[in-house]
Amino acid sequence: MFLHKQALQYKSTPEKPDAVYARKLQEVIGGQYGEITVAMQYSFQAWNTHIPGKYRDLLFSTAAEEFGHVEMLATMVAQLLEKAPVGATEEAVQDDPAVAAVIGGTDVQQAIVAGAGARPVDSNGNPWSAAYVTASGNLLADFTSNVNAEMQGRLQVARLYHMTDDPGVRDMLAFLLARDTMHQNQWLAAARELQEESKENLPVPSNLPQSKEHQEYSYQAINFSDGEQMADGSWARGTAPDQLGEFTYVPTPMDGTPMPPPTHPDARFFGTTGVPNVAEQAAATAQDKLKRE
Amino acid sequence: MFLHKQALQYKSTPEKPDAVYARKLQEVIGGQYGEITVAMQYSFQAWNTHIPGKYRDLLFSTAAEEFGHVEMLATMVAQLLEKAPVGATEEAVQDDPAVAAVIGGTDVQQAIVAGAGARPVDSNGNPWSAAYVTASGNLLADFTSNVNAEMQGRLQVARLYHMTDDPGVRDMLAFLLARDTMHQNQWLAAARELQEESKENLPVPSNLPQSKEHQEYSYQAINFSDGEQMADGSWARGTAPDQLGEFTYVPTPMDGTPMPPPTHPDARFFGTTGVPNVAEQAAATAQDKLKRE
Amino acid sequence: MFLHKQALQYKSTPEKPDAVYARKLQEVIGGQYGEITVAMQYSFQAWNTHIPGKYRDLLFSTAAEEFGHVEMLATMVAQLLEKAPVGATEEAVQDDPAVAAVIGGTDVQQAIVAGAGARPVDSNGNPWSAAYVTASGNLLADFTSNVNAEMQGRLQVARLYHMTDDPGVRDMLAFLLARDTMHQNQWLAAARELQEESKENLPVPSNLPQSKEHQEYSYQAINFSDGEQMADGSWARGTAPDQLGEFTYVPTPMDGTPMPPPTHPDARFFGTTGVPNVAEQAAATAQDKLKRE
Amino acid sequence: MFLHKQALQYKSTPEKPDAVYARKLQEVIGGQYGEITVAMQYSFQAWNTHIPGKYRDLLFSTAAEEFGHVEMLATMVAQLLEKAPVGATEEAVQDDPAVAAVIGGTDVQQAIVAGAGARPVDSNGNPWSAAYVTASGNLLADFTSNVNAEMQGRLQVARLYHMTDDPGVRDMLAFLLARDTMHQNQWLAAARELQEESKENLPVPSNLPQSKEHQEYSYQAINFSDGEQMADGSWARGTAPDQLGEFTYVPTPMDGTPMPPPTHPDARFFGTTGVPNVAEQAAATAQDKLKRE
Amino acid sequence: MFLHKQALQYKSTPEKPDAVYARKLQEVIGGQYGEITVAMQYSFQAWNTHIPGKYRDLLFSTAAEEFGHVEMLATMVAQLLEKAPVGATEEAVQDDPAVAAVIGGTDVQQAIVAGAGARPVDSNGNPWSAAYVTASGNLLADFTSNVNAEMQGRLQVARLYHMTDDPGVRDMLAFLLARDTMHQNQWLAAARELQEESKENLPVPSNLPQSKEHQEYSYQAINFSDGEQMADGSWARGTAPDQLGEFTYVPTPMDGTPMPPPTHPDARFFGTTGVPNVAEQAAATAQDKLKRE
Amino acid sequence: MFLHKQALQYKSTPEKPDAVYARKLQEVIGGQYGEITVAMQYSFQAWNTHIPGKYRDLLFSTAAEEFGHVEMLATMVAQLLEKAPVGATEEAVQDDPAVAAVIGGTDVQQAIVAGAGARPVDSNGNPWSAAYVTASGNLLADFTSNVNAEMQGRLQVARLYHMTDDPGVRDMLAFLLARDTMHQNQWLAAARELQEESKENLPVPSNLPQSKEHQEYSYQAINFSDGEQMADGSWARGTAPDQLGEFTYVPTPMDGTPMPPPTHPDARFFGTTGVPNVAEQAAATAQDKLKRE
Repeated sequence: MFLHKQALQYKSTPEKPDAVYARKLQEVIGGQYGEITVAMQYSFQAWNTHIPGKYRDLLFSTAAEEFGHVEMLATMVAQLLEKAPVGATEEAVQDDPAVAAVIGGTDVQQAIVAGAGARPVDSNGNPWSAAYVTASGNLLADFTSNVNAEMQGRLQVARLYHMTDDPGVRDMLAFLLARDTMHQNQWLAAARELQEESKENLPVPSNLPQSKEHQEYSYQAINFSDGEQMADGSWARGTAPDQLGEFTYVPTPMDGTPMPPPTHPDARFFGTTGVPNVAEQAAATAQDKLKRE
Repeated sequence: MFLHKQALQYKSTPEKPDAVYARKLQEVIGGQYGEITVAMQYSFQAWNTHIPGKYRDLLFSTAAEEFGHVEMLATMVAQLLEKAPVGATEEAVQDDPAVAAVIGGTDVQQAIVAGAGARPVDSNGNPWSAAYVTASGNLLADFTSNVNAEMQGRLQVARLYHMTDDPGVRDMLAFLLARDTMHQNQWLAAARELQEESKENLPVPSNLPQSKEHQEYSYQAINFSDGEQMADGSWARGTAPDQLGEFTYVPTPMDGTPMPPPTHPDARFFGTTGVPNVAEQAAATAQDKLKRE
Repeated sequence: MFLHKQALQYKSTPEKPDAVYARKLQEVIGGQYGEITVAMQYSFQAWNTHIPGKYRDLLFSTAAEEFGHVEMLATMVAQLLEKAPVGATEEAVQDDPAVAAVIGGTDVQQAIVAGAGARPVDSNGNPWSAAYVTASGNLLADFTSNVNAEMQGRLQVARLYHMTDDPGVRDMLAFLLARDTMHQNQWLAAARELQEESKENLPVPSNLPQSKEHQEYSYQAINFSDGEQMADGSWARGTAPDQLGEFTYVPTPMDGTPMPPPTHPDARFFGTTGVPNVAEQAAATAQDKLKRE
Repeated sequence: MFLHKQALQYKSTPEKPDAVYARKLQEVIGGQYGEITVAMQYSFQAWNTHIPGKYRDLLFSTAAEEFGHVEMLATMVAQLLEKAPVGATEEAVQDDPAVAAVIGGTDVQQAIVAGAGARPVDSNGNPWSAAYVTASGNLLADFTSNVNAEMQGRLQVARLYHMTDDPGVRDMLAFLLARDTMHQNQWLAAARELQEESKENLPVPSNLPQSKEHQEYSYQAINFSDGEQMADGSWARGTAPDQLGEFTYVPTPMDGTPMPPPTHPDARFFGTTGVPNVAEQAAATAQDKLKRE
Repeated sequence: MFLHKQALQYKSTPEKPDAVYARKLQEVIGGQYGEITVAMQYSFQAWNTHIPGKYRDLLFSTAAEEFGHVEMLATMVAQLLEKAPVGATEEAVQDDPAVAAVIGGTDVQQAIVAGAGARPVDSNGNPWSAAYVTASGNLLADFTSNVNAEMQGRLQVARLYHMTDDPGVRDMLAFLLARDTMHQNQWLAAARELQEESKENLPVPSNLPQSKEHQEYSYQAINFSDGEQMADGSWARGTAPDQLGEFTYVPTPMDGTPMPPPTHPDARFFGTTGVPNVAEQAAATAQDKLKRE
Repeated sequence: MFLHKQALQYKSTPEKPDAVYARKLQEVIGGQYGEITVAMQYSFQAWNTHIPGKYRDLLFSTAAEEFGHVEMLATMVAQLLEKAPVGATEEAVQDDPAVAAVIGGTDVQQAIVAGAGARPVDSNGNPWSAAYVTASGNLLADFTSNVNAEMQGRLQVARLYHMTDDPGVRDMLAFLLARDTMHQNQWLAAARELQEESKENLPVPSNLPQSKEHQEYSYQAINFSDGEQMADGSWARGTAPDQLGEFTYVPTPMDGTPMPPPTHPDARFFGTTGVPNVAEQAAATAQDKLKRE
């Protein structure tokens, strides 16, 4: 159950409107790594979790916080758009090229569709898609996904921080940066704890017996490009991070196996199947079949 | 530049056709964490890399290998579909309910659209989307994304392994499992090496001065749900994984700040703006403006 | 700010698992008119509202309730999937056609991707898209959108009610049906109240002076098909619902205006532009331009 | 059957080209509430209607008219683009910042993909999606959807009206505004007529016996936020619009039911399932199962 | 302007319902090469055409016909669904596995969302997308696109023909096959006529002076794979179809040029940029810049 | 199997950065007809081919070349973005409107998401979608699709050529233009060769016996619009390109067949079904059914 409180976790008011920046901020609302993604991702991970207790509590808590971040950003966007220009382009250009320039950089749907409001889309206007969400039921995999989401998210906020000099916006972003720092650390801590408690281990999923895989290929760094420095990395020698194997370096791919011959499905799929004579035979066969129907 | 070789990295031939399984296998071809995703993701990461050398060599190499995995799987799918039934449903049901059951579980587009062939879609027929790709230019963030991708990928292959008992399919999957083990380990090793060489550190991006963020919130585990065990995790006390702060636990969210008042954009956006009298005034103003145009 | 409480608004436990039904229930989680849509729609409407007070309070409240409905349904889906079959298809078909039939009707991504869990997708596996959301800043338009959403939603729940006979599932659906009844009524009441308080009126947006539109066409029921009964409806005669005009019936479309001549953009767009001789001239001109560059 | 006539319902010619405005106009061609949406929506509603006669006649007629509106807008867009600039950006900027500003606001795909032509996309370039369409077979629900579509559509046209001062464009928009007025009124009239004729009633679907729902919750205004003014609306007291119940106000959500325990699907889904010892047991069990395969 | 006539171009009534086949038929309604695609594609090509006359007349005519085909198919689908089963799955399985099998193969959204009606989606439930449409303004390119669309369309109808034995359905498909034959031929004829009239030629766009391209590569068949039979095709020797060059065969790709060095964007993008010492310097520089802000 | 070589097929370095053009170039990377499309399309066609030998060799070869073109373009984009501005908008506008104008025309996700890098999206930021891919198993259809893809591709490159005057960019585009010339010719040659070898013929699929279609409609040019010049084309008289029929011209569509009566699905779909009295009866029936459950 979710309860709503009419307050923001942190102050979210710009010093002055900026419709171009309002578009850019959409990225962290409705982009691949925006706040909607993490709010929904942590929610579904919680709902799909198979163990009660601290991990699920953490997922529910962080999900709720992230919905609040969507709210902070949407509130900010609406304020940045408060003085968004409506006027005709021609007029604007004649009066002031700088104004026209600004218009070129705005999200026209924030104006036409939302009436100067926030939208659940990214900075190019792509609607948020649930295809961004990861919730597999395996917590080590999912916490790693969460670490990545918080890294990409903080990276984007850091970039956005330098695309404005509005003190109000920067104040809010400085808060979001801090929470992203927390959340990166928290998911890393949770991933470690899972491994220490031996609930999960590397490689994911660790409870698939490794005898099921062709282990001779499990620690080979095979080079499919011609970059010679691939041999120099820690992935080409020494013990692997999962502590279960030793890396070896293979400078050139194995020969591989010949491709199997092309398939010949039923003639009623009308694929292209043959050299002329064979084709005629196939056609004849097909005709026969077809006549029978 | 990419060169193609008419061979497969590993044998990919089923013992017998299975059109239902051919649909399931689409997940690891064209799903969120299928082979197209990793092939494209590592390619774009390589093209967006700002440093030459071993990391980029690793990206190019793994990208090329993953395109070969798409090929192995597509080849397998075509063979699984080789005897896919075409016939009319009614007929099939009358003859044999089991056949009809099979038809219900197949991907009808593999038949109607591809003529018994593989498609760049997932197991529910969603076309592969480049929105799955992550390539930020920050290697620590991106390698973490890659670790996650290989974890989710190996998890899905492990599940698929248990959805067939065809020895030929399992043989190929056992190979893919091994390569996923390698790739999980390789990206973990690369992420560590980046940190050891001090090119990147936690939290990502590490070269944003931490003074830019509101550090009082950077290590607070704030509970937005009512699960009491959130306090028991390693994320609620002790040194954070980034070694830069100490976790503290905050059992209840701060009061927050009051929401700013709603915005009042230009009347020509025709939003709903007021109590009646004010509305009349606003309308009057709007009328004035409109008349002037 | 959103707070989470580890309880469900209403009991959501099936009597027994049913993986086929778990797929169908996805429609009201992640479909066009599923609970994610209304939760997000009401949230964005609240954030884009220009007036504080009762309407915004209603939006925030209902948004929070709907997120709780997503949770109830996701919890239900996970339980319906608890005994979802993993086994190989071939085996299943040989053992029991009925089991195979069931497999054909399941969402294979609930198994392969979510490990027997709920997903933010519809019953055909399409990821939820924010393109479903409506939040225009005009409350009469948006409340009408909400009435529609609750109508479509209750209609789908009513259909789903008859696709199961599990008492636990029906118990939960009976609760959701009741809440959809409330929400249909509530948005209708709110839309009426807006009009009574004269904040908004028909036609939306009412504060556009009607003199701006070509009023001679504002109440014409023009018949573009050949169905003679179109003349019999209340839209073809009498006072219009907005009380501002009288409907008239026009049995055949006006002749209209001739299409303007086709456009001739710059030759460097390489469109097809002419009859031969003219084409040669155009080509010559284009060549000239191109040579100058 | 559809027949085409080479004429436009109303004159659609701009006074002068305006490539920036050509982009904005895409919203009402290919946006969520653009003319393609209503044309397709009314068509599918007509094809899915279960009753012949006046309602279906109205649907077919309006669908055909709306396809003609797509044509009017596409024709207009092509003319607005007739002098769209092709030239190199650098050059443009050096010559005239205002020209460069204009370029920034255009839809680059109208140039690169369509060669200065209209496209079936919205003003941010998102391709039109059939996911916008509503056609449920229940006419009261669908007519309400249509009312909303015409409201959102007229609202967007009203906004677009104020983003240009080209008399030719405004002339065409004034016509579209009038038709949207008609269509809002017409669907409202049709919805009323359905209720008066007792074919449908509130709540939708009205032929589901209300005893099927948990009626104690059917008229409760439950407050899930902390806005105190929610109690002041007409949805919190008095008779509901469906005339079947009395609204009551519930200031705080019920306690709800405890969440059911997390699910434990088959171990071969490789989800995270337990505390260490239990995990070991589970792993052992899983191993056993796996060995048997 | 489009006018609607309440008749079908050809009889579209099945002999008996078949809900599984109703799903399959969705492919040619709302798939990549379904009737919605060609109807919309020919419409937009007509609206973007730069020449009046016979080609545009042909486009408008065929567009209108194709909208009528959507109608025929939607009408057929509704009838195929007329007896679609609603009942609970469990019950169905217990009673008759064959019925359950059928349920597994149906489109559940046709039931839940459309109430046993047609939808603007493909046979896997993907909503039709305007991204399928091609309308470039260059008629030779677009007519070639149309030839392809009609080929893929006829191929799919041919496959569907063999997936049913219902005489009513086959009767309608036999009509659609004939029209696809006509349309393949018509676009081929139109493409030829364009070339004969010298309005367009190969290669498209023919009015780009060929001196603009690096002509030494314009007729080289370069082999990037290791298939030796590539040299045997008519593309490897002789005069090219455009009559402007002679094919030559290049058995191995050229060496190519070295990749340019990786880019170094502004430090405020926080990309990974260097070896440690350099990194320190870069960091220092970045810090300096950041301090100044 | 794919191997990567760290070289580019042709030099791809701009003379100077141009962030606006970097956005435009995305069209030919990740657009409907960008290089990702052709690379993936030729790959899937090769994997779905039913005949070994020269055609498949050609497909594999061209697929590999096209992946290399993606690389050339991505490399170019990264360089065009190397000096992309990060700074705050306000500041930029104050300093120099021309700079602000440029910002308006850039792809903000190249900055915020990719850190000044290329992305797998089109010039409006739509992620590349596998829905663009065509691979049907019928080579004549697919080669025709390929001819179209290369035509549209070369057309877009020609347009892009005139949107820059950077010699480095133009040099690369001149190479791509040449390769598009080759590929247009090559697929045309391959399509002809297929027909000459009698593997495939018109109409596609040629091995469907023409007796299956209603041949009286196979060569009729029926006019559904009112353009009189449709009768003047080569599609209205003479022998059809498939050499199997004679075109005839039909100036007005046939009357057609009456629409079948609307469907009446099970009452539990809650569709709108009747005039009042009938409705009451239907409701009664529905109630009966519902009571029994």
